[in-house]
Amino acid sequence: MLRVRQSLRARKMQQTRSDIAAAALALMDRDGYAATTMEAIADAAGVSRRTVFRYFSDKEEVVFADDPVHTEVILAAVDGAAPEAAPLQVVRRAGHALAAELERGAKDVARWSALVATEPALQARYLAKQRRWEALLAERLAQREGTAPEAAALAAKIGVACVQAAFDRWIADPRRPLGEHVDAAFAALAGLVAEPGG
Amino acid sequence: MLRVRQSLRARKMQQTRSDIAAAALALMDRDGYAATTMEAIADAAGVSRRTVFRYFSDKEEVVFADDPVHTEVILAAVDGAAPEAAPLQVVRRAGHALAAELERGAKDVARWSALVATEPALQARYLAKQRRWEALLAERLAQREGTAPEAAALAAKIGVACVQAAFDRWIADPRRPLGEHVDAAFAALAGLVAEPGG
Repeated sequence: MLRVRQSLRARKMQQTRSDIAAAALALMDRDGYAATTMEAIADAAGVSRRTVFRYFSDKEEVVFADDPVHTEVILAAVDGAAPEAAPLQVVRRAGHALAAELERGAKDVARWSALVATEPALQARYLAKQRRWEALLAERLAQREGTAPEAAALAAKIGVACVQAAFDRWIADPRRPLGEHVDAAFAALAGLVAEPGG
Repeated sequence: MLRVRQSLRARKMQQTRSDIAAAALALMDRDGYAATTMEAIADAAGVSRRTVFRYFSDKEEVVFADDPVHTEVILAAVDGAAPEAAPLQVVRRAGHALAAELERGAKDVARWSALVATEPALQARYLAKQRRWEALLAERLAQREGTAPEAAALAAKIGVACVQAAFDRWIADPRRPLGEHVDAAFAALAGLVAEPGG
């Protein structure tokens, strides 16, 4: 019973979080990032400014509201990989899990990506989040039997590079599913490495 | 004659730039990044605060004073690559050129790296610089005959990932030259891709 109540509370909190983020993105879309204040976000979401700050430490974080979910999706995919899977296979699996998640909100993701591209502070936060993904991925990969820490660190970086390249291609060519762009990036990586001297 | 004079002036400016950066790093080493003001940097370098701001737009940029030189070294290596070289071969060549440059100032680079690791604002600037290297590399690679823009973008990301992994290893194990860590990272990449399912 306690568990159900906690879960309800967690779901309500998740909803409030999503509502604030959705209101913020709509405002930023209309007025620009700089002109959108935490007060305006609170008003638009129908909550107090204090509530906004309870969920998000600053305005950049509101834009990356989905990051905890994305991180969870990535790490769950790593944990669910077969024990015998090679490191790049594991990060590719994580890329596909993230792709499936992003495709569910494809239209918002495109708007979100355009917003991040306009604002150096958001780009900086985005890069920091990617770096954190790399570190978390490397840590999890290194826990797998037979994967040395150096191989884990490199596989994590390579995986994030491939998924980022796929994401950039998807934003430019959204008719093709992101998952296919992920496969194309890993295939292109194999092609680059197979070239003589590559 | 004019060329020689310009060159002397350029060299003098380069010297002032280096002096300011060296004074700044010494101060940050002693007092920490946050406590080091642009005024203190100017005093230590024996120039006016205005002069410091003529060379560097903000305190973060002082820490990345070598970035223009590094960027030049990287792009010169790309331009000097054989026309038939494969994209990953070209980025590896660029990695070696950067490694040679960094090895010349190895002790300062280790101090610099430790400084950047302590300060989120510096990490953010560092990631932005890396992203810029990726973009510049991708642009140059795409100008080479037979390299599609997507392959160029991916090769640039992969190259930066390998060189960053090598750099991290070098900071942890500086007895081995950075150039060897670069070779080891590219060899590890080939190993990861060669694994079944990788």
